[in-house]
Amino acid sequence: MCVGIVGLGLIGGSFARAYRSLGATVYALDTDRDTMDASMIETVEAPLDDASIPSCDLIILAAYPQACLEWLEEHAEILGRISDPDTSRGPIVIDTAGVKEAVCARAFELARVNGFAFVGTHPMAGTQYSGFAHARADLFRGAPMVLVPPETDDARRLTLLDRVHTLLAPIGFGSFSVTSPEEHDRVIAFTSQLAHVVSNAYVKSPTARAHHGFSAGSYRDLTRVAHLNPGMWAELMMDDAKNLSQEIASLIEALDAYRLALDAGDRDRLRMLLAEGDRIKRALDDEASSA
Amino acid sequence: MCVGIVGLGLIGGSFARAYRSLGATVYALDTDRDTMDASMIETVEAPLDDASIPSCDLIILAAYPQACLEWLEEHAEILGRISDPDTSRGPIVIDTAGVKEAVCARAFELARVNGFAFVGTHPMAGTQYSGFAHARADLFRGAPMVLVPPETDDARRLTLLDRVHTLLAPIGFGSFSVTSPEEHDRVIAFTSQLAHVVSNAYVKSPTARAHHGFSAGSYRDLTRVAHLNPGMWAELMMDDAKNLSQEIASLIEALDAYRLALDAGDRDRLRMLLAEGDRIKRALDDEASSA
Repeated sequence: MCVGIVGLGLIGGSFARAYRSLGATVYALDTDRDTMDASMIETVEAPLDDASIPSCDLIILAAYPQACLEWLEEHAEILGRISDPDTSRGPIVIDTAGVKEAVCARAFELARVNGFAFVGTHPMAGTQYSGFAHARADLFRGAPMVLVPPETDDARRLTLLDRVHTLLAPIGFGSFSVTSPEEHDRVIAFTSQLAHVVSNAYVKSPTARAHHGFSAGSYRDLTRVAHLNPGMWAELMMDDAKNLSQEIASLIEALDAYRLALDAGDRDRLRMLLAEGDRIKRALDDEASSA
Repeated sequence: MCVGIVGLGLIGGSFARAYRSLGATVYALDTDRDTMDASMIETVEAPLDDASIPSCDLIILAAYPQACLEWLEEHAEILGRISDPDTSRGPIVIDTAGVKEAVCARAFELARVNGFAFVGTHPMAGTQYSGFAHARADLFRGAPMVLVPPETDDARRLTLLDRVHTLLAPIGFGSFSVTSPEEHDRVIAFTSQLAHVVSNAYVKSPTARAHHGFSAGSYRDLTRVAHLNPGMWAELMMDDAKNLSQEIASLIEALDAYRLALDAGDRDRLRMLLAEGDRIKRALDDEASSA
């Protein structure tokens, strides 16, 4: 098996190490020369270029979204030349960005026009660290993997999903789910981006400096993802700005209800607000455990 | 050693089981007859009453704040009669409420007027479950314990803190810190109450129902404490309403800045907001690890 990787950050580097540990040949590309040199010591066989692309079964775009699209624009023609969607010949190209509408709209179009296979993906794993130095072969072990296939007829869609599943399964993902770019971005604005914004905003209270000695577990959980890569997240969030803005507005509205109850000294109202959140949380947990 | 406990919920019940497992004699009181019966099978020796109070070294008030103060009003006279602050004779009474100003103001007064020893405490442990059935002897193992002594001369204060530390240390707390009721309530509004409000409000987004299949670890962390005891938390939060309302307002203001940057399509501003939170979080983590 041969795997090509564009961008050797935490995600791309972890894919490289994971496939290498499975015995695959890995070709890769990174704009940073030191990263490139480090990766070629024991992980990457050779640069990903027009010579190595044709031997790849899977090409993983793991740079920032814009850089991934630029690579795809530049290589759409060669990818089309070595592929035949009718016979499943040629590599499957996937991206790994945390937002899907912005990337998939253009990538689906390039794949359709040039005749190669592309599936959007979002491997839901990460750490607060970034870069190849922190990449780990087991980063994706047990993690959820979201697949975002193009709109096409059912038979071709199933074949495509089956091929990408077969290529990705050895990495050890905990689950696979399939969704549309729009649904993905709506959900991710809530489960991931809003969580990072809230955590990042939480520590800005003037009281944050004063809590040493008795911070609770709840505080640690709430602020765990306050530490993040600002450039990467700003790009992801801006690509999903409408959904995320709505989620922030919705949360602000919900928070304000508690504040009003506190200011009014209305304990019954506060208890009802807390009971409502408790009820929703229990219902969600029940659904999740019976899913 | 003899320990008296008022209220056999999660906290009182866990103190009862912890001291019993250390070989202490435990007297206790709960308004619920089934809890009382269950506790007397293997944990509690006999009810805490005028007959058993004089033999106690430590009396732990672990009911809701108002109920604790009522018990203290009713027993202030007998506690004074068996105590001598000058010779450290008589039990030390502690409460365990999550807010300290409301309870300590009255309890310090009762202790001073009647001549018995009282120290406010806040054991920072808990689970999302409540009640004696979930009480565990190891609930406090490694947990931070906050002590809130009365304003008095330094020598008496040190003696009091030393006595209460000696009585509580065998339980296995991870750390002890000493603060004032006002400072405690200001910090706890931020580290604990705000975390519960945010978590409880977070799940109220209409999107919460749609995320199954790909929720991230950040979502699980953010919503862990959404499940809570609404009656208890409404009482705690109402007793700390001013501080908590300020923290909610401060968080709303911080969140709104991200929303405005998103709506304006201002990626640089969004990146700066994220970088600011990241910087503060790293500074806090550095302080905590060097403390």
